[in-house]
Amino acid sequence: MLNKNLKSWVDIKPDSDFSIHNIPFGIYSDAEVKHHACSAIGEYIIDLFVLESADLLDINRSVFEEEYLNSFIGLGKPVTNLIRKKLIDILCDQNSILKKDEHFFKKVFKKQSAVKMLMPVKVGDYTDFYSSIDHATNIGTMIRDPKNALMPNWKHLPVGYHGRASSICVSGHSFYRPKGQQKPADSDNPVFGPTKLLDIELETAFIIGKQTQMGDSVSTEKADDYIFGMVLFNDWSARDIQTWEYVPLGPFLAKNFASTISPWIVTLEALEPFRVKGYEQDPKLLPYLQYSGQKNLDINLEVFLKPQNGRENKICASNYKYMYYTMEQQLTHHTVNGCNINIGDMMASGTISGPQPSEYGSMMELTWRGTKPIKLNDGTERKFVNDNDTIIIRGHCNKDGVRIGFGECIGTVLPTK
Amino acid sequence: MLNKNLKSWVDIKPDSDFSIHNIPFGIYSDAEVKHHACSAIGEYIIDLFVLESADLLDINRSVFEEEYLNSFIGLGKPVTNLIRKKLIDILCDQNSILKKDEHFFKKVFKKQSAVKMLMPVKVGDYTDFYSSIDHATNIGTMIRDPKNALMPNWKHLPVGYHGRASSICVSGHSFYRPKGQQKPADSDNPVFGPTKLLDIELETAFIIGKQTQMGDSVSTEKADDYIFGMVLFNDWSARDIQTWEYVPLGPFLAKNFASTISPWIVTLEALEPFRVKGYEQDPKLLPYLQYSGQKNLDINLEVFLKPQNGRENKICASNYKYMYYTMEQQLTHHTVNGCNINIGDMMASGTISGPQPSEYGSMMELTWRGTKPIKLNDGTERKFVNDNDTIIIRGHCNKDGVRIGFGECIGTVLPTK
Repeated sequence: MLNKNLKSWVDIKPDSDFSIHNIPFGIYSDAEVKHHACSAIGEYIIDLFVLESADLLDINRSVFEEEYLNSFIGLGKPVTNLIRKKLIDILCDQNSILKKDEHFFKKVFKKQSAVKMLMPVKVGDYTDFYSSIDHATNIGTMIRDPKNALMPNWKHLPVGYHGRASSICVSGHSFYRPKGQQKPADSDNPVFGPTKLLDIELETAFIIGKQTQMGDSVSTEKADDYIFGMVLFNDWSARDIQTWEYVPLGPFLAKNFASTISPWIVTLEALEPFRVKGYEQDPKLLPYLQYSGQKNLDINLEVFLKPQNGRENKICASNYKYMYYTMEQQLTHHTVNGCNINIGDMMASGTISGPQPSEYGSMMELTWRGTKPIKLNDGTERKFVNDNDTIIIRGHCNKDGVRIGFGECIGTVLPTK
Repeated sequence: MLNKNLKSWVDIKPDSDFSIHNIPFGIYSDAEVKHHACSAIGEYIIDLFVLESADLLDINRSVFEEEYLNSFIGLGKPVTNLIRKKLIDILCDQNSILKKDEHFFKKVFKKQSAVKMLMPVKVGDYTDFYSSIDHATNIGTMIRDPKNALMPNWKHLPVGYHGRASSICVSGHSFYRPKGQQKPADSDNPVFGPTKLLDIELETAFIIGKQTQMGDSVSTEKADDYIFGMVLFNDWSARDIQTWEYVPLGPFLAKNFASTISPWIVTLEALEPFRVKGYEQDPKLLPYLQYSGQKNLDINLEVFLKPQNGRENKICASNYKYMYYTMEQQLTHHTVNGCNINIGDMMASGTISGPQPSEYGSMMELTWRGTKPIKLNDGTERKFVNDNDTIIIRGHCNKDGVRIGFGECIGTVLPTK
C-alpha cells in the first residue's frame, strides 16, 4: 500500500511528520480565519476552504468552514478518502495551479508556526481503555501483588471506562494543578489540597468516523470502517486523588480535570502501511474479539519534559505496537452490548508502556512510584510533574524511508488556581 | 415560597403532576411540529413557540424552535425563571387571551396524550453518583462483608464515575437486552451471551444550567445557580456483566447500553418548597463539602414493573430524601478539581434506596440477589427484568395539598438483537 515514489513539489524535510504520505486533517485559526479545516504538508498547513475556492476537490466547501471536522468526517470514508487522495494528487502534480499560481499558493498555504491549531472534533463521548500489558502489569505489581499483577478479567477483555469529554484540550494549552481529597498513609482521615502526585499517561486515541444505532454491534472485521483516524493523547492523572477515590467505581476526579490531544487527525488509511502483527493473545479470546490480519501499528512514541525556561528532556520512548489489544478489538468490545457510537467520539488506548523501564509511559512507572527519580538536564529531579513543567508527546511511523507523524501533543501545568 | 393561593383557569385534576406550581420544560413533536419547546399544565402541553407568536413572554421565540432546550437554558436563570413566572401569571389570569381566545388556545394547548415527548437536552457529559447510603450498604453487604459494607472513602466524598451520554433515551423507548461477557462462578473462563441479570436503578438526575471554565470550582453555596432542574432516571444495569468487568476501573458495558429519563425538566425553583433537612453526615466532611440550610428534597419515588400485556406492579416506593449527599455536594465535589461543566450535562443520583426492603431501588436489592423473587399480580415471579417487561418510574412532591411531579420514566426491554 506504500507508494514510495510519491513526490511532492512542496519542499519537505526528511524528518517532517507531514510527508506526502500523511495528509492529516485539522482545524486552524489565525488573525484572518476564525476556523477552517486544513491539512498539512511539510511546514505548511493547507487551508481547505480557501483551496476549494478553485473547485479542486469537488465538494461543497461550507463543510470546511465549520468549527469542527465532525460534518466533514460524517461525509463518510468514500468521500474523505477521495478528498485525501485528491490532495495528494494536487501536491504531486507539477502542473498544479497551486504550484504555478504564487498568489493562490500564498492564500492556501500558511506556515504551521504562524497559525493556531484548534480542537479538530467536537467529542461526544470519551472512553479510555487500559490495554497495554506492560502498563497494567507494572501498576498491578506496584499497588497489589507482582504474582497477581493482572486482574482475572484483563486477558479476556479490553478493560475500559468512560472519561470526561469536556476537559479534552488541544495541544498548546495549560491547566491548573487540580485540588482534591487525598488520604495520607499515616492518617485516618483524608486531607484536601493540590495533588502532590501529578502524572502523565502516554496514550493515543482513535476518533469514530461512522455512527451506529443502539443495539448495533461492530465486528472486528468491520471496525476499521468506523475509525476515522488517530491522535496522540496525554491522560493527565492525579495519583493521590485516584488512590483514594477509585474503589469501587473507577477513576473520576483523578483524571477529569484535563486531557491533551495532538491537533492533527492522522487517518487510518495513512497508518495502514505501518501495520504490524498484534500481540499473541493467550488465553484465546471469546470469538467476538478474535480477528485476522495484521492489526497492530508500529508507531514510535516519545515523551519529553520541559521545565519552565529549561530544555527538553526525553523521559520515555515507547511504541504503539506494545498494545495487547488492538483498536479494532476495543471498538468491537465497546459495541458488543449495543452501546451506540457517534462521529467524533474519542477512544483512548490507555498508557502505552513497553517492556523496558525506558519505555514506561507514566511517571508512576518511570520513577517506580517516586522511588527512582528522573534526573533532568538542568540538574533537578522529578518524581512526578512539577508546576510550570511542560509535557510534550511526539509520535511517528517510519518504514522503508517513508515517515509520517502526529506533530506534537503539548500541555503545561500551572500552579493551583 | 409556596403560594397555595395560585389558581389556574385550566382544569387540573388534584393528582396531576402538572399543577400550576410546576411549569416544567420539555421538547415535543407531533404530526405538525418537528420539535418545539413546551411546558405542561394539567393534561396539556403548552407550545411555547406558538404561544410566543402573541408576544406574551417577551423573548426571541426562535429559542423555542430548536431541537433541544440547551440554548433556552443558556439564557440563564434570570431569564428562564422569569419565563416560568410569566407562564404562571398567564395561566392564572382570568383575562388571558389564552383563556378567552378559543382558537388561540387550541393552537397552543395540546393533549399530552396526543404528542410525543423528545429528549429535552443534548447531554454533553453524563456522571453517575452513588450517594444513597442504604443502597451502598446493601450492595456492600451482598458482595463483600456486612461489617465493612461501605468502602473507607464513602462517607468522605460522594463517589461518582463517568457514564455514557449517547445512550440516554427519553421515556417511551425500548432497547435490546445487552450481550456481553459473564463469568459463571463454576467456570474458569468467561462466557458470552445476553445478560441474565438485567436490573434497574431508581435514580434522579440534575441538569447543568450554567457553564464553568476549566480551573473553576463551584461552592456548595453557589451550586444551585448551576442546577437548572431535575428528571427521573433509570440506570439500567447488567449485573453479571458488571461483576466480571468492573475491577479495577468501574462499570462500563454493564451500564452504557441504555439509560432512561423522564421528558420534563422540573426546575429547581419548582422544587424549592419541598426542601427538607439533609442526612446527618458523620464523620464531618472536609470544609469544601459542608453546607448550610435545608438542601435535601422530599420527592416520593415509585417503580412499577409491567409485563407485556399485563398490569402494572408496584415493586418499590422510595424517596429522594434518603440521599446521604445532596446535589449541591455532588456538584461541588465534581468541580473541586477544576473539572469544567457545560449546559446540558447530566448528573445522576445513584440508586435511591430507603431503609425498608420495600424502599430498595434496584431488583438486586429488592430480590436480594435473586434469592427473594418478587411475586407479580399475574402469578409470575421476577428475580431480575425479563424480556418485554416495561419499567415505569414515577415521582412527585406533596406538601400542604400542593403537588408537583415528574410525569413518567418508561423503558421496555426487547429480546437480544
